Amino acid sequence: MKTFNELEEFILNGDKVYIPHFSIECVIFGYENRQLKVLLTKLLGIGWGIPSGYVKQEEMLTAAATRILNERTSIDNIFLKQFHVFGDSFYRSMQYQIDPTNYLPANSWLRQRTFSIGFYALIDCTKAKIKQDFFVEDYKWVDINEIPNDLIMDHNEIVTTALETLRNQIFHEPIGYELLPEKFTLPEIQTLYETILNKKFDRRNFPNKLLSQEIIVKLDEKRNIGQHRAPFLYTFHKDNYQNALNERVSITI
Amino acid sequence: MKTFNELEEFILNGDKVYIPHFSIECVIFGYENRQLKVLLTKLLGIGWGIPSGYVKQEEMLTAAATRILNERTSIDNIFLKQFHVFGDSFYRSMQYQIDPTNYLPANSWLRQRTFSIGFYALIDCTKAKIKQDFFVEDYKWVDINEIPNDLIMDHNEIVTTALETLRNQIFHEPIGYELLPEKFTLPEIQTLYETILNKKFDRRNFPNKLLSQEIIVKLDEKRNIGQHRAPFLYTFHKDNYQNALNERVSITI
Repeated sequence: MKTFNELEEFILNGDKVYIPHFSIECVIFGYENRQLKVLLTKLLGIGWGIPSGYVKQEEMLTAAATRILNERTSIDNIFLKQFHVFGDSFYRSMQYQIDPTNYLPANSWLRQRTFSIGFYALIDCTKAKIKQDFFVEDYKWVDINEIPNDLIMDHNEIVTTALETLRNQIFHEPIGYELLPEKFTLPEIQTLYETILNKKFDRRNFPNKLLSQEIIVKLDEKRNIGQHRAPFLYTFHKDNYQNALNERVSITI
Repeated sequence: MKTFNELEEFILNGDKVYIPHFSIECVIFGYENRQLKVLLTKLLGIGWGIPSGYVKQEEMLTAAATRILNERTSIDNIFLKQFHVFGDSFYRSMQYQIDPTNYLPANSWLRQRTFSIGFYALIDCTKAKIKQDFFVEDYKWVDINEIPNDLIMDHNEIVTTALETLRNQIFHEPIGYELLPEKFTLPEIQTLYETILNKKFDRRNFPNKLLSQEIIVKLDEKRNIGQHRAPFLYTFHKDNYQNALNERVSITI
């Protein structure tokens, strides 16, 4: 929505374009400087939350999530997965929907009870060009350990559940592959697994299984990160990694 | 729905009671005679499928699924989990919804596009008392390897996805515990894991890790299953099992 008129049209007549009663909420993860981050956007007059949108009347569900993510980040070919429907909290109850607000007409379709389908996306946040517009007045990438606890509606619950989902799926979805750059250092991959699994690994043992099963391979290439510091770079062996995921092999020790 | 009148009222005015645009579909698993089974119900004039229903206007999502399962099986305290939203196939598209049928009025709310939220449930199928009514004219428990491939709408896709979900979650959800009786034989637990994981284990090695980590314990009790055949019974050590699930330990070798 670029203009006030577009926003007004969405509020008054959006249900001619979109299906009411459920929205899509997107938890967009990126990994940078050994920090796992989530994209937060600030909605005009409402507050900080995660990007969201509605499914168009004739649109398939995954196509809708892809469109919403693309509209917000300008990234094509995003890795995304639905992970949970949020329909059990106060914010998804009848009581919340009839709570009067200052700017929605009493009969607005946006006051109808709305469940949310959560999708998580894994992107290279250095490549994302986040779009702001009339309604989204600001954005920031926030370390998952520093998410403010006062996001709008149930967005804190949605982010927490998305993170639990990464934890549960890290050994059968290509989460490491999608979040790391093509070439990475051992500390980078170790910190990513430590962050998602929320535990520490011994630096000497961590890469053993990844290397012995050739899930990652060492490149003949280093990265200069300072005087006398030039760690070797590694990359995923895509077939071996995919086989490990198919077999749900725990790829850490 | 016990009567024709109730069915007619549901078709004509159901959207005063229920939220339109998404339904709940339930894949109910039971385990009996070393077979993993799914409950199928036959809908009047439509065909075989899985139990489903709608969320009431003021009902929470999980409460709705619990109610639908209880109405159909008479079981309280069912273990159930949502696992996927189905919104990408022909049956969830606008084209399908406007396809004329013989018995729905042109403006029926049931012709509106409807996405489905899939829940899976794990029950003791020997304890379920399946309710039939005017609309559900028959039911059967079917081995997951013998599900007919012509279930109504996208119900085959929903059952298949539920089974993949068990496979992905068997090491972090109490799936074995919920499906097995309190006391079970080693062949019973082995077959359950083999069925869900779709692979064979060596009979001599299978229980090693379960026993050495005291996830299951041997009881001083046997079951007589025939002349000279009285295998020992085992039971889950609930704390150790829960710890293994929390740590996502692969509890088979």
